[in-house]
Amino acid sequence: MTIRVTVWGENVHEQKNKVVAEVYPRTMHGTIAEFLNREDGIAATTVTLQDPEHGLTAAKLAETDVLIWWGHAAHGEVKDEVVERVAEAVWSGMGMIFLHSAHFSKPFKRLMGAPCNLSWREAGERERLWVTSRQHPIARGIPDHFEIEYEEMYGEPFGVPEPLETVFVSWFQGGEVFRSGLTYRRGAGNIFYFRPGHETYPTYHQPMVQKVIANGVRWAYNPEGRLANPTDAPNRPIGKTLEPLEERGPRLHHDGEAGYR
Amino acid sequence: MTIRVTVWGENVHEQKNKVVAEVYPRTMHGTIAEFLNREDGIAATTVTLQDPEHGLTAAKLAETDVLIWWGHAAHGEVKDEVVERVAEAVWSGMGMIFLHSAHFSKPFKRLMGAPCNLSWREAGERERLWVTSRQHPIARGIPDHFEIEYEEMYGEPFGVPEPLETVFVSWFQGGEVFRSGLTYRRGAGNIFYFRPGHETYPTYHQPMVQKVIANGVRWAYNPEGRLANPTDAPNRPIGKTLEPLEERGPRLHHDGEAGYR
Amino acid sequence: MTIRVTVWGENVHEQKNKVVAEVYPRTMHGTIAEFLNREDGIAATTVTLQDPEHGLTAAKLAETDVLIWWGHAAHGEVKDEVVERVAEAVWSGMGMIFLHSAHFSKPFKRLMGAPCNLSWREAGERERLWVTSRQHPIARGIPDHFEIEYEEMYGEPFGVPEPLETVFVSWFQGGEVFRSGLTYRRGAGNIFYFRPGHETYPTYHQPMVQKVIANGVRWAYNPEGRLANPTDAPNRPIGKTLEPLEERGPRLHHDGEAGYR
Amino acid sequence: MTIRVTVWGENVHEQKNKVVAEVYPRTMHGTIAEFLNREDGIAATTVTLQDPEHGLTAAKLAETDVLIWWGHAAHGEVKDEVVERVAEAVWSGMGMIFLHSAHFSKPFKRLMGAPCNLSWREAGERERLWVTSRQHPIARGIPDHFEIEYEEMYGEPFGVPEPLETVFVSWFQGGEVFRSGLTYRRGAGNIFYFRPGHETYPTYHQPMVQKVIANGVRWAYNPEGRLANPTDAPNRPIGKTLEPLEERGPRLHHDGEAGYR
Repeated sequence: MTIRVTVWGENVHEQKNKVVAEVYPRTMHGTIAEFLNREDGIAATTVTLQDPEHGLTAAKLAETDVLIWWGHAAHGEVKDEVVERVAEAVWSGMGMIFLHSAHFSKPFKRLMGAPCNLSWREAGERERLWVTSRQHPIARGIPDHFEIEYEEMYGEPFGVPEPLETVFVSWFQGGEVFRSGLTYRRGAGNIFYFRPGHETYPTYHQPMVQKVIANGVRWAYNPEGRLANPTDAPNRPIGKTLEPLEERGPRLHHDGEAGYR
Repeated sequence: MTIRVTVWGENVHEQKNKVVAEVYPRTMHGTIAEFLNREDGIAATTVTLQDPEHGLTAAKLAETDVLIWWGHAAHGEVKDEVVERVAEAVWSGMGMIFLHSAHFSKPFKRLMGAPCNLSWREAGERERLWVTSRQHPIARGIPDHFEIEYEEMYGEPFGVPEPLETVFVSWFQGGEVFRSGLTYRRGAGNIFYFRPGHETYPTYHQPMVQKVIANGVRWAYNPEGRLANPTDAPNRPIGKTLEPLEERGPRLHHDGEAGYR
Repeated sequence: MTIRVTVWGENVHEQKNKVVAEVYPRTMHGTIAEFLNREDGIAATTVTLQDPEHGLTAAKLAETDVLIWWGHAAHGEVKDEVVERVAEAVWSGMGMIFLHSAHFSKPFKRLMGAPCNLSWREAGERERLWVTSRQHPIARGIPDHFEIEYEEMYGEPFGVPEPLETVFVSWFQGGEVFRSGLTYRRGAGNIFYFRPGHETYPTYHQPMVQKVIANGVRWAYNPEGRLANPTDAPNRPIGKTLEPLEERGPRLHHDGEAGYR
Repeated sequence: MTIRVTVWGENVHEQKNKVVAEVYPRTMHGTIAEFLNREDGIAATTVTLQDPEHGLTAAKLAETDVLIWWGHAAHGEVKDEVVERVAEAVWSGMGMIFLHSAHFSKPFKRLMGAPCNLSWREAGERERLWVTSRQHPIARGIPDHFEIEYEEMYGEPFGVPEPLETVFVSWFQGGEVFRSGLTYRRGAGNIFYFRPGHETYPTYHQPMVQKVIANGVRWAYNPEGRLANPTDAPNRPIGKTLEPLEERGPRLHHDGEAGYR
């Protein structure tokens, strides 16, 4: 059994910004796919914003077990139609990992139903991530804390729903904290938000960060088959009730009707 | 201190369907506002789908502490722009109660980020609601269970995120169950979903149901002032850090920049 | 990799009650171990209340990945010292499944910190379990609902903490509901409560029930090594801080002290 | 309506340690009761470890709406019988606030069912508390962050169950973080853990800390009457079912029996 990962990269700053191009000569999404492909049981490919339908056709999503999303400068260019398709894939059971600035990506905001805002500072400061849920699958092999020497700061309050579990909390040199590893479920899909990864720093080259993301992939993966119609609201007609039941009172709907949406 | 409630009514079946008009001669939203106005410390008004901007102007939302939503046949007619305005009001601290078929309303789906689907049957069957969180503020004065003799069935699985707390679970005569009272928080706003209320039955005339909705209003009300800019993502500039910090490494952003969205 | 399961059986009614002995000629714990041993990757053994230290020596717990607990008539005979040992094993990462009347067992009450009470009726009535979290690992291969024709009723309110996730809710013929599949984490240990299994009915012979328990074993299993000292509260001495720090102010403790408990 | 608060003080270091006696000349519990008594609608009294039954007789608990607990050096001296009485009071609806080192108090460990451990350092370092749930009732009137200049450090991982909501996260000068404001419900009782308050520093003289504790009292208070028997597990006899039901199959229990515990 192999987990099929698709890494979605915005691919803007890698092309336009010299610093980013130097830190990630094989692009950010390329780097992420590369280290995932070194893991047993994971097969990662990449798609980008610039691909037709941003690379996220129905066919591609159907063969994606876990989708990883990195975006920053061009959130607004992602088509709403693709966002809905991604949300439906999550509801049907696709796992999803949102990295760093993807907190403001359209699919994350769509799935959270919340502002997803935070405070921030770009100063190359030290971040230290603390595990808050010991032996959580996403913290597998991770010590109680680890450091990223150069990172952008994200600070609380972080405008997200209360998670299923808080896995990491970050300390920042400038005095802020941030819940940097959070888990959610939407429909049949597992969602993991992981904070680190500003594009001007070599965060995704760091082994501990790579390990968390690989752990996240395994955690988010739902081995069950994908739900065919994750938004269906089936009528259970009166003739077929599980317990004997006689119809009473007035009705709006006819038997077998689809109902209002 | 008075809690200002706005009851939003779709107001379609009350006008077009004889049965509904007879059960709710003063409309559903009118009925809900009426019993809330009999409560100490609650002042309720109504607006409808047919009002300009569906009655939900920025001014109206600004003076609404808790918004109650009932819709069914015309979910699709609610303008997306109003939906966003409502979501922002919730994030800024407005409480919100979604009743019955509002599980498929645009604002509920927007705030949940989930399919919000379920199974259903319109047979006038018996529903019995069980309290699952004793002495929860929303269950105040409610016995361990109470019955609604005629109701539409909603059945699990209910496609919503895991709630903060499950307050009621319903038993249905035909053999189904449903988590019929669920609490959420999105931004600074408290959200309560309450299942009963099919328009062809006199559910909202029933004292126990009225009590739950009044309790829900008090629970959802956030006495704090509304947040001015609930989606702001402020930059915390380097010169003003809480701890001494020296800038290091390359930058994408200029001081005081708004950041990407 | 094989998951080592220990099934703890109270083993009282199987010995004293003719009906139970006929329904479970190989005992309840024996039956549970038997069907688990037919699963790939699971190796189950049994211990009982009557064994020295109830079969739960430190050595046995150290080689148990998931402990399953069924008890009813003799909760009070379980030694507190063993209960503490079990709780510590859970905190260190051992998974645990509590079945049916184990809601009132000492280890469950110890790990929940709550009354764990409910209402009940022994009438051989129909129970129907509904999945409330589609495609949850514990619901793997389980349809939206399944029935147990003869069961004891357990009714809400169920006095447990709000779970991480509600996986099943039961419908009962007599008019009650119950949250019958609940997940928790305590320390590094995953806990699953599963309701069915009154000893006078053949519940654990039923394939769907067996599948849920096997799923529960896989879900509860934590592949990480066990934490050596799950209750340690280490001092982080001043000379070894992660950031430069000068001691200030008065002190109660000496360097390297164990602290109060 | 007045909320009746009982502040439980260990009262050991105030008597034995010169520094503590100087910082809290009217004792810690006395100081806490004093500032609470300046609040509208709160009436606070104090009891101590040294009182008969530690001051927590059934009568005293019956007239306590919210119990505040501060202990450190003498956790082990608290009688188990009193701990059980306190736990039952919480389950029946009494609110409870645990302060600082009370994370290792017997009642907190009893109610959490978890190790409740952490790492620590006594160096008079700076703590900065960040609000993680904006406009939460416990954060009422609290800015996005506030500082305590001299505090003991508590660091993650904090061995507690996932809370209902995380309200505060602390930053420490030495490089650690801590979830310093957490909410729980056990039975009908609301529980708030709040981290600050090492006895050698003037933490409870600080207005912002006082405000959080007062907010916590109002949040934890359950205006419902106390449940008479919070651990009862009533039999619902066959002759009195809510739906028609015929008894089937064999029985263990007689009608009206109390059941096993």
